[in-house]
Amino acid sequence: MSDMTSFLNNIKFDDRGLVPVIAVDDDTDQVLMMAYTNEEALQRTLSSGHATYWSRSRGKLWCKGEESGNIQKITDILLDCDGDTLIYRVKPMGIGAACHTGHRSCFYRHWDGSEWTDNGDPVMFDPKEVYKFTGDNK
Amino acid sequence: MSDMTSFLNNIKFDDRGLVPVIAVDDDTDQVLMMAYTNEEALQRTLSSGHATYWSRSRGKLWCKGEESGNIQKITDILLDCDGDTLIYRVKPMGIGAACHTGHRSCFYRHWDGSEWTDNGDPVMFDPKEVYKFTGDNK
Repeated sequence: MSDMTSFLNNIKFDDRGLVPVIAVDDDTDQVLMMAYTNEEALQRTLSSGHATYWSRSRGKLWCKGEESGNIQKITDILLDCDGDTLIYRVKPMGIGAACHTGHRSCFYRHWDGSEWTDNGDPVMFDPKEVYKFTGDNK
Repeated sequence: MSDMTSFLNNIKFDDRGLVPVIAVDDDTDQVLMMAYTNEEALQRTLSSGHATYWSRSRGKLWCKGEESGNIQKITDILLDCDGDTLIYRVKPMGIGAACHTGHRSCFYRHWDGSEWTDNGDPVMFDPKEVYKFTGDNK
């Protein structure tokens, strides 16, 4: 059995062939984003060492940062107990923002008891400057 | 508009009425588990202060730790940029294990390049001792 077969056999893909993946900053342990991946994106992730997802909205492989420069270098891949969720531990390259809004993390809002407010996660870039030419922002 | 309406209106539930939620240890930032929640489970979470999920396998509300004692006290709730994923930041009570296998985190396996192996996440209890009477372990 090849390594790739062993890798994939332990992952429970849903009926769309997808599995959720949580990207975690390897230096800070901050949760950066949650997205989906599939067999092809996982193969690309392993071969390139760069976090690759499946974009449900665009229906294609999505190497995070291929347009913005904010590539996520893979340092580890974790699998949960029932095999239906992954973690990519990553080192963010470039400006180091995971979110298309320019925030370091997509989780930049929290519930303050009466409304969803900004939780202070820093804004690292202006998305209007970075995504001038493409819709490759999520 | 009530606070609860404001809370729920910003969350994009999927076609099953569910939204994925990542439980993160508030002290260590470790990702403990990923599960799903719905409107009712979120209302219970806010009113009780204890992380509550929707168990897809059992088809009912699931207050984490109601059988094992490993309740997760909520310290913060985060929402991502497109509103379709939540984070519960929690303080694990009791023995402090999130996983039904007894591990602190459900993400106790990692890919070592040729196989999925234990990543050293500690085993905090023996699941055969804790879940004697019920199937309430996931």
